[in-house]
Amino acid sequence: MIKSETVRQILDHYRVIWALGHAQSVMGWDSETYMPEEGIKGRAVARAEIAQLIQRFMLDEKFVKLIERAEEEKDLTDIERGIIRTLKRDLKFYQRVPPEVVKEFAKVTSEAFVAWRGAKEKARFDLFLPYLERIVELTRVVAEKLGYEEHPYDALLDLYEEGLTSRDVETVFSVLEPGIKSLLYKLESRGWPRRHPLEDVPYDKAKVEAAVMEVLEFVGYPKARFRVDVSPHPFTVGIATPFDVRITVRYRGVDFREPLFSALHEYGHALYELNIDESLAMTPVGSGVSLGIHESQSRFMENVVGRSREFAAKISPTLRKHLDFLAKYADDDLFYYFNVVRPSLIRTEADEVTYNLHILLRYRLERLMVTGEVKISQLPELWNNEMDRLLGVRPRNDAEGVLQDIHWAHGSIGYFPTYTLGNVVAAMIYYKHGKIRELVAEGNLASVKEYLREKIHRWGSVYPPKELLSRGFGETYNAEYLVKYLDEKYD
Amino acid sequence: MIKSETVRQILDHYRVIWALGHAQSVMGWDSETYMPEEGIKGRAVARAEIAQLIQRFMLDEKFVKLIERAEEEKDLTDIERGIIRTLKRDLKFYQRVPPEVVKEFAKVTSEAFVAWRGAKEKARFDLFLPYLERIVELTRVVAEKLGYEEHPYDALLDLYEEGLTSRDVETVFSVLEPGIKSLLYKLESRGWPRRHPLEDVPYDKAKVEAAVMEVLEFVGYPKARFRVDVSPHPFTVGIATPFDVRITVRYRGVDFREPLFSALHEYGHALYELNIDESLAMTPVGSGVSLGIHESQSRFMENVVGRSREFAAKISPTLRKHLDFLAKYADDDLFYYFNVVRPSLIRTEADEVTYNLHILLRYRLERLMVTGEVKISQLPELWNNEMDRLLGVRPRNDAEGVLQDIHWAHGSIGYFPTYTLGNVVAAMIYYKHGKIRELVAEGNLASVKEYLREKIHRWGSVYPPKELLSRGFGETYNAEYLVKYLDEKYD
Repeated sequence: MIKSETVRQILDHYRVIWALGHAQSVMGWDSETYMPEEGIKGRAVARAEIAQLIQRFMLDEKFVKLIERAEEEKDLTDIERGIIRTLKRDLKFYQRVPPEVVKEFAKVTSEAFVAWRGAKEKARFDLFLPYLERIVELTRVVAEKLGYEEHPYDALLDLYEEGLTSRDVETVFSVLEPGIKSLLYKLESRGWPRRHPLEDVPYDKAKVEAAVMEVLEFVGYPKARFRVDVSPHPFTVGIATPFDVRITVRYRGVDFREPLFSALHEYGHALYELNIDESLAMTPVGSGVSLGIHESQSRFMENVVGRSREFAAKISPTLRKHLDFLAKYADDDLFYYFNVVRPSLIRTEADEVTYNLHILLRYRLERLMVTGEVKISQLPELWNNEMDRLLGVRPRNDAEGVLQDIHWAHGSIGYFPTYTLGNVVAAMIYYKHGKIRELVAEGNLASVKEYLREKIHRWGSVYPPKELLSRGFGETYNAEYLVKYLDEKYD
Repeated sequence: MIKSETVRQILDHYRVIWALGHAQSVMGWDSETYMPEEGIKGRAVARAEIAQLIQRFMLDEKFVKLIERAEEEKDLTDIERGIIRTLKRDLKFYQRVPPEVVKEFAKVTSEAFVAWRGAKEKARFDLFLPYLERIVELTRVVAEKLGYEEHPYDALLDLYEEGLTSRDVETVFSVLEPGIKSLLYKLESRGWPRRHPLEDVPYDKAKVEAAVMEVLEFVGYPKARFRVDVSPHPFTVGIATPFDVRITVRYRGVDFREPLFSALHEYGHALYELNIDESLAMTPVGSGVSLGIHESQSRFMENVVGRSREFAAKISPTLRKHLDFLAKYADDDLFYYFNVVRPSLIRTEADEVTYNLHILLRYRLERLMVTGEVKISQLPELWNNEMDRLLGVRPRNDAEGVLQDIHWAHGSIGYFPTYTLGNVVAAMIYYKHGKIRELVAEGNLASVKEYLREKIHRWGSVYPPKELLSRGFGETYNAEYLVKYLDEKYD
C-alpha cells in the first residue's frame, strides 16, 4: 500500500504518536465510565504529560523534515497524499501558534470550565464574562497566527472542518433559514404535534437499557469490536479504530427517546470508525476525517433512519416487549413521539426541524465575537433577541440562554457549524441513495451500511471532506436536500 | 519533602515515565476487563511502543547522570535515598542486560506462552520443552549479566524480591519443611477435615457476587478510590496509587470459597497500594516495595484474617443472607469448609498448610534448572517424584504436574519463593501484633488496617524489604512464626 520510502519512514515515526493517542483514548474512556472519583488526581497528570509528549514527537525535527520531503515527491498514492495532508494540518497548529498561547489557552479554559459551571448553576453570565472575554481574545490570536483568506472565523472553522469557510456556512444557512422558517409556519398552521404524553412517562432504567441494546442489535454491531457503557454524557471513542470502538449512553429515568436516540446517534459515529479500512489502522488517516462528516453519520442513523416511520414500526415490537407503558400506543404514536416539533430554548433538546436555527444563532454570535463587533458583555441580550427572532421563544435567564452550552468554556469557537453540516450531509445521503426508507422497512440495514461504508467510512481521512463528498455524491454541502427532506417528512 | 535539588530534577524527569506507566496500567486493566476481543490488535502495538518509550526515558543520559550525582550526595533523606535506590535497580537491568537478549526473551516467551497453553491442553510436556530450554538458557544469561555473589539463582530472586538470596530461602524452608510435614502427619492422624460437602455446591453468580461485595464492605474500602470488576484471572492494579486502585474477581459457579477468598486476597494487595503515603504518589517509591511484601498483605487478609474462626463467624450472617444453601450449616461448618487441608496436585487450589510445599518443589527445580544440574527433559519425572516425596500425591499427567503453572512460560524464574515469603511475613505480623483475632471478633478491622498502614503500607518502596521488616518488626523472614501459626490454628 505504501510505496514511498519517505512515507514508510514517516509511518514508522508516527507509530509511537499513534500509541500515545491510543493511550489517551483509553484513559479518556475510562475517566468517563469506570474510574473511581479520586483517580482524577493521577489521571490529570498522566494525560497532560502524554499530551506534551505527543506534541514533542510531532515537532521532532527529523519527522518534520521527512514530511516536507515527502510533500515534494511525485507519484504519491492517494493514501500517501492523505497521510502528508493530515500531518501537515496537525503540524500547522503546533508550528504557528506559540506555546505560550497554547499554555495560556489550556489554563484559561480549565478555569473557565469551573466558572461556567458555577455561572450556569446560578444563571449569572457576569461570573463567566471575564473568562469568555479572555478566551475570545486568545482565539483571535490563534486565528491570526493560523491565517485565513477572507475572515478570521474561517481559520477557526478549518480547525474543526478542514477547508470549511464562512462563505460555505453562509450559503448553507441562506437556504436553511427561510426553508425551516416556512416549514415551521406550515407545521403550526396544520397542527403538527408540539407535545406528546410519552415525553413525561418515567421508565425503569434496566428495561430501557435492555430495549436499547436490542435495537442496537437490530441495527447490527460487530460484537468483537464494539461495546456500550454508561456515562454522564454520551460519546463515541475509537480506541483502536477499527478494531475497538465504544459508545456510551445515559439513562435519566424519564422520556426514553433520549437514550434510544443518543444510542443510535453514537452508533452512527461508531459505524464510521468501525468501517474504516483496516489497512489505514494506526496511520494518520486511520480515523474519521472531520467533525461535520462524523456528525453526518450520527445524524443519518439517529434521524434519517431512526426517526423514520419505517424504523418506528420496525422496532416497536422490541420497545413494547420491554416497556409495558407502550401497550396503549400505536406505531404511529411512536412516530409522532419521536418527531414532536416545538421551538424551544435548549439546543440539545431540540427537534430535527428547529435544531439548525439554534446553530445559526451561535454561528452569527461567534463571528461577531471573533471580530470584536460585539462586546462579550452584550452577548446575553443579543442571544435572547436572536432566539426570539429565529424561534419565537425568549430565555427567562442566562442558564437557559447564553450559558447553556459548554463549548465556549472549552474554547471551542468555530465548532457549532459542523453540527448543521452533519444534518445537511445526512439529508444528501438520503436522496443520493434513494431507497433508504424501503430498506429500513425491509429491515435490510446491512445494505444501507454497506453504502455508507463505500461512500464515506472506508476512506478514513484519505480525502479532505469536500473531496470525499464530491467523489461520493458529486457535490459538497447542498442544503436544498435538507430542506426537501424536512418538507417531505413533515408533510 | 524533597530537599535535594538533584532529586527534584530527577522527579521532574521521572514524571513522564510515571505517566507512561500509568497509561500501561489502565491499558492492562482494560485488556483484562472490558476491551472487546479484537481490540488486542491495536492494544498490543500500543503497549509495546510505550514499553520501549519507558525504557528510552529511563536510559536517557542526562537522567542517568542525575541519578549518579544524587547518589554521591550526603544528607539525603530516607525518601530521597529510596528514590535513588529504586531507580538504580530499574537501571541495572536495562544497563546490564543487552537489548538483543531482552528482545529475544520477549519473543521466546510470547511464543512459549502459546506453546505452553497447547501443551497443557494436551498434557504433553514435549511440546513445551524446546521453549522452556531456550527460556532457561536466556535466564542464565540474564543472571550472569546481572551478577551475584553466591549462586546465579540469587540474581533472579533479586529481580522479584530486592535483596533476597538462596541462603534466605534455604533458611526459611529448613524450618518450614519439617514443620509442615509434622503438622500434616498430626492432622491426618487426628482426622482434620480433608473434604467438605460445600466444595461441590453450585452457586448463583449474582448472589455470590452480592455476598462478596458485602464482605468487602465489611472489611472496608474507600469507595472513591477503589473498584471491583470481573476478569478471567483475579488481579490487583494500582492505576494511580493511592488514588485509584482496582481489583478483579471471577465467579466459576461452584465452590464459593474461590471468589470469596480471592476477593479478600486481592483486597489485601489493594489495601497496601491504597495506604501508601500520598506524598509518594507519582514518584519511583510510590508503590509496594516487592512481590513478597505484597503477597504478605494479600495472604494476611485472605488467610490470617479471612480464614480465621472469628471472621467466619463475623461474615456468616452476610453469607447466609445471600446463599440459601447455607441454611443447614453452622458457623463452625463454614470455618472447616474454609480450612479443609488436603495434599493435592494443583498449587493454586492448595490449602494454607500444604501450599508452601508446592513452592518448595518449584524452588528446588528452578535452582537445578538455572545451573544446568538437571536437563529440562528430565523435569516431569523429577516433578512427579518430588510431589510424591513432599505431599504423597503423584500427577497422572503433566497438565496436573509440571505444566500447571504459567510462570515459566512467562519467563518468570525466581518468582515462586515470594509466595512463601508472603506467607511467612503474614504470620510474623499476626504474632507481632498479638491481638488480630480479638479485633476481628469485635469487627474492628480499622485498627488492624491502621497497624498495617503504619508498619508496612505507608512507606511504599522507601525502604528495601528487609529493612522495612526490621524497622517494623525487629527481624526479617523468620519462618518459625508461620509454623507456630499453623500449629496453633490447626490444633
